[in-house]
Amino acid sequence: MISSSLNLQNLISEFANLPGLGRKSAGRLAYYIANAPKEKIESLLDAIKNVKDNVKRCKVCFCLSDDDVCNICSSDSRNKKQIMVVENERDMLAYENVGEYKGLYHILGGALSPLIGIGPNELKIKELMTRLSGDVDEVILATNSSVEGETTATYLAKIIKPLNIKVTRIASGVPVGGDIENIDEVTLLRAYTGRMEI
Amino acid sequence: MISSSLNLQNLISEFANLPGLGRKSAGRLAYYIANAPKEKIESLLDAIKNVKDNVKRCKVCFCLSDDDVCNICSSDSRNKKQIMVVENERDMLAYENVGEYKGLYHILGGALSPLIGIGPNELKIKELMTRLSGDVDEVILATNSSVEGETTATYLAKIIKPLNIKVTRIASGVPVGGDIENIDEVTLLRAYTGRMEI
Repeated sequence: MISSSLNLQNLISEFANLPGLGRKSAGRLAYYIANAPKEKIESLLDAIKNVKDNVKRCKVCFCLSDDDVCNICSSDSRNKKQIMVVENERDMLAYENVGEYKGLYHILGGALSPLIGIGPNELKIKELMTRLSGDVDEVILATNSSVEGETTATYLAKIIKPLNIKVTRIASGVPVGGDIENIDEVTLLRAYTGRMEI
Repeated sequence: MISSSLNLQNLISEFANLPGLGRKSAGRLAYYIANAPKEKIESLLDAIKNVKDNVKRCKVCFCLSDDDVCNICSSDSRNKKQIMVVENERDMLAYENVGEYKGLYHILGGALSPLIGIGPNELKIKELMTRLSGDVDEVILATNSSVEGETTATYLAKIIKPLNIKVTRIASGVPVGGDIENIDEVTLLRAYTGRMEI
């Protein structure tokens, strides 16, 4: 028995299906909901409904947005000749939080992974190529440093270069604050081959 | 900026207010909700609504229940002459999962804590005393081993004993699998004074 109430038991199962929540945290949340004031839970329900009803994908970069075109793509202060290609929106937000990059983004919706059936057609690659037929100076490949991310970057570089657009890849190496003795060999090799004159 | 959508930003804040969820897990959940199929989210919304609309407190033991009297209190196979007093329902379920105890429960709704204004009137103590006027052989005090839990147990023992009902307290000592060298002094002292002949 996980609860003396079937309704509660059902809610615990629903929560436990969400990403990052184990049975214990799901139970804690469900009990909180059972005991919390009704208005608090109604505002949570409204927030969930609003996201499902009103959030769509930006027509240009495919990030989640309240409008047809997101506030980055429609902003006059962004450099529209630079496009940073990322796997998903959380990666884009990580770069936005840094605050240095002032160009636009393109969200692929994942990375190439033939083993689980994700090929070029499953990602927003055709849409990226359409954007590149416009006035673009540089494409920055900011996919992850994983096997899938690297494969995707290599693939994109190969199909974009013939368009005579500058293609760059974000640097890979020892993270800031990282101890060399604790860093894996592949990263160390990458840091060595990617060394720059100072 | 935490999201390119205000609706999503709002949902992240709502999630971050729930117990045990930091901003990072709240973000992960909100993105999952934005991307998940509508039916999945509707079943989550229904589960939350069902808990708020249909779950009440059992009139006898005050655990969360779908009915006026919970399935433990209304079961014929439970020993109605034993009452285990616990702070909250999660403690009751922990004992139910053990499966050994066959009596009833009483949920206090917390523990005495004068510093934050929780006195006997804030807990279901009056209701416990009413139950004890019936045919009860033993009250098992299973409040936590914290200062508040111990205070509550001492207080309850003091007011129940004059009724000529047997009052017991769950044992406190070295947990099973615990290394004595890593256990705090108070627990070691407790284990020593509570030693039993084998």
